[in-house]
Amino acid sequence: MPPEDSVIQGLIQLVGPGAVLHRQEDLMAYECDGYTVHKAVPRAVVFPSTTEEVSAVVKFLHQRKISFVPRGAGTGLSGGAIPLNGEVIISLVRMKKLLHVDYENRRAVVQPGFVNLKLTHSIAGKGYYYAPDPSSQYACTIGGNVAENAGGAHCLKYGVTTNHILGLEVVLADGEVVEFGGMPDQPGYDLVGLLTGSEGTLGIVTKITVRILKNPEGKKTVLAYFDRVQDASQAVSDIIAAGIVPAALEMMDRIAIEGVEAGNYPVGHPKDLEALLLIEVDGIIAGLDEQIDEIRKICHKRNVREIKVAADEQERGRWWANRKTAFAAMGAISPDYLVQDGVIPRSRLPEVLAKIDEISRQSGLRIANVFHAGDGNLHPLILYDARIPGQTQLAVDVGSRVLQACAEVGGSITGEHGVGIEKLEEMRLIFTDEELAAQIRIRDVFNPHQLLNPGKLFPTPGRCAEMKKGTQTERGRSS
Amino acid sequence: MPPEDSVIQGLIQLVGPGAVLHRQEDLMAYECDGYTVHKAVPRAVVFPSTTEEVSAVVKFLHQRKISFVPRGAGTGLSGGAIPLNGEVIISLVRMKKLLHVDYENRRAVVQPGFVNLKLTHSIAGKGYYYAPDPSSQYACTIGGNVAENAGGAHCLKYGVTTNHILGLEVVLADGEVVEFGGMPDQPGYDLVGLLTGSEGTLGIVTKITVRILKNPEGKKTVLAYFDRVQDASQAVSDIIAAGIVPAALEMMDRIAIEGVEAGNYPVGHPKDLEALLLIEVDGIIAGLDEQIDEIRKICHKRNVREIKVAADEQERGRWWANRKTAFAAMGAISPDYLVQDGVIPRSRLPEVLAKIDEISRQSGLRIANVFHAGDGNLHPLILYDARIPGQTQLAVDVGSRVLQACAEVGGSITGEHGVGIEKLEEMRLIFTDEELAAQIRIRDVFNPHQLLNPGKLFPTPGRCAEMKKGTQTERGRSS
Repeated sequence: MPPEDSVIQGLIQLVGPGAVLHRQEDLMAYECDGYTVHKAVPRAVVFPSTTEEVSAVVKFLHQRKISFVPRGAGTGLSGGAIPLNGEVIISLVRMKKLLHVDYENRRAVVQPGFVNLKLTHSIAGKGYYYAPDPSSQYACTIGGNVAENAGGAHCLKYGVTTNHILGLEVVLADGEVVEFGGMPDQPGYDLVGLLTGSEGTLGIVTKITVRILKNPEGKKTVLAYFDRVQDASQAVSDIIAAGIVPAALEMMDRIAIEGVEAGNYPVGHPKDLEALLLIEVDGIIAGLDEQIDEIRKICHKRNVREIKVAADEQERGRWWANRKTAFAAMGAISPDYLVQDGVIPRSRLPEVLAKIDEISRQSGLRIANVFHAGDGNLHPLILYDARIPGQTQLAVDVGSRVLQACAEVGGSITGEHGVGIEKLEEMRLIFTDEELAAQIRIRDVFNPHQLLNPGKLFPTPGRCAEMKKGTQTERGRSS
Repeated sequence: MPPEDSVIQGLIQLVGPGAVLHRQEDLMAYECDGYTVHKAVPRAVVFPSTTEEVSAVVKFLHQRKISFVPRGAGTGLSGGAIPLNGEVIISLVRMKKLLHVDYENRRAVVQPGFVNLKLTHSIAGKGYYYAPDPSSQYACTIGGNVAENAGGAHCLKYGVTTNHILGLEVVLADGEVVEFGGMPDQPGYDLVGLLTGSEGTLGIVTKITVRILKNPEGKKTVLAYFDRVQDASQAVSDIIAAGIVPAALEMMDRIAIEGVEAGNYPVGHPKDLEALLLIEVDGIIAGLDEQIDEIRKICHKRNVREIKVAADEQERGRWWANRKTAFAAMGAISPDYLVQDGVIPRSRLPEVLAKIDEISRQSGLRIANVFHAGDGNLHPLILYDARIPGQTQLAVDVGSRVLQACAEVGGSITGEHGVGIEKLEEMRLIFTDEELAAQIRIRDVFNPHQLLNPGKLFPTPGRCAEMKKGTQTERGRSS
């Protein structure tokens, strides 16, 4: 039986019946992404297979002033792919080809639905890899990474997604197809940079040229145990000050360590530690031991209890699994948890950690800290029990106070998870009205009728009031 | 005697009589920048000392719909600071303070008129430096570097200006003051990236937060002599393919070598060479010798005639002086020369060099090639004699054909010199009308009345026709 909705019929005419979901039971799967608090059912989900199909679908919707939301794998953590107002979802998962690899010029061209980790797997045989490594990299798409400007543990040395995107093919709000970039030194405005991290509000990316890197000749990974958070924080600053640029420099505090040891990948960290650092250096083998020696000296100067180097790739892999599943592991020590994502200048680490501790004591909720210390990118995990009346809202408020503490020292309200619908109101903590207005004027150039992902990224008075009434929590996700 | 022009009077009221030039004989010095072909006298030159004064001046001009051009040290090579239509020039040279250095978080805050090299000099004592190193760095300002997204010899490893700018304070076209960035992970659109390289068309930068880097522990510099351009080009590709990331990887061909040896800084290169490579690696000392060994092996595989490592800092300095003054040195072997600036994918180097050779033979003009080989950033130097009728225009046409050859292999028409007024028409070689229109729509958001640096960066039908009649050459500059 054909659907009665003429919009659905029109979409089916454009992409075929096998590429449009419209029955309520099918649409339910698309009511949220990795941010599970707000839910809304889309009007339809369309699965174009080519740029031409994306363009045709967008033109069709644009003519009818029907709004739409681009979606990758749905692993986003801030609700960017949720069809808040019953939008049509344009899913890019069928556009999942690796189109071209140019090893000599170190570039690869992928479709937006191509999974992040598959790119590294596809080029590893020739000794290359794709650097941005969000914890969801086994599932998330490179198109989604572009939308969110995704990060990862190795961003300290290699930069976030925007540092690895060389060119984009984009379907604009009216269905027009344009190309931006493709060469690093293109003149004119940096529209590749503008699109990257724009959370689906400026266009739909249909082809992506990324930078690929040669595998480093060697890697060394260190685990350092500390009895005082202050010492670990100071060691982080000392390592950077010494001119060492680790590939990764991660920190976990006592509660986080308790969590990961109770989770699926325990590695036997002592239970009475106050902090640990997971440090990785990579590059030409000849230089690595010297860097490790220097890191060892710095850690000893900062009263490290124990420091050890991974004996082999297996041990290194276990340490990373232990770290990368830290969020999910919180489920082992708390019924519920809320993950936050804030950024601070590295030098303010001890001060902000003390402030988070104070917020924790005042609220009565435990807070675990797992973070990219080298970048100053905090991931406080607020532990609570949703069965206790009021605790969910308390956790949300605590998260907000943590972000405020980040903003107060000149930091940011999100390091890598994006704004989406989760942090609309918090945008006001770091931008003045004028600064938001300048950004919204740019959005309106690309997206004049607010058809592209409406209600995301920037607060509006109505939306904020609405959001404030909701319960902004997120549970059970890993990063 | 007070000036009769009420605009001049108004400007003097805002910033004082000592900060406004308005007499014809004073204005003559501002009729061009490093691009000396087109000249135009400004209505006035204003020298604000503070952000508030910039804002007041811009508000004053905005109210009267008088257009204006921001200017740094005037070393730009594409005419971006030329007051084509008799605009008011807003010179930022009095805003030349180093405001703050935060070594721990590796940031410095400067005013736009602060000279590039002074930043490195100011922080060298603590072992830090500012990476972008255009050849004019002894004179050019960081504000100008932001406007042009300036490059330099060490961009291969460290990136161009945009990779080192963390935040900007900007006076918008109506005089409003806003701040963009300040933290690397700020959400929303990347307006810092958008402003960087916008050539003064979006706003006037009044404060700049830059990334500073720790000095590498060591450096090694290599000079490699080749009998065939093809071998040198292939060695460049092989070095990159081996996973080595040199800090710099420069190439000169036979005519360029003839030029530098006839110039002020000869170092005794053999006269019968076809190409040389100047290669620098830096980082942890322990890894450097191994990289040099590998580079040596690669060069031998590619039939290098001779390869040598700089014995000390003095020898290294002489090699760099020889390279960095290559443009000016052309004056020793040709009455006139025109420098071009194109970018190609590194793998197309031999093909494009052959094409340039063909263009040279067809036109009868010699072309020297000096370039950032690792980046694929060519600087062909077209040698001619302006006293021979028609040769100036021939040189301009040859330059245009070289840029076309770059564009044809997927390259760019400028690597680091910008578009300004010099390459307006060539923008059409790499952008479609739709792509230009998308950029112009963004310009119009920030610059709706075209008061900010009108007629620069984007071609308009009128402007292009006008330009084509002119003689687009540039002479006697160094880079």
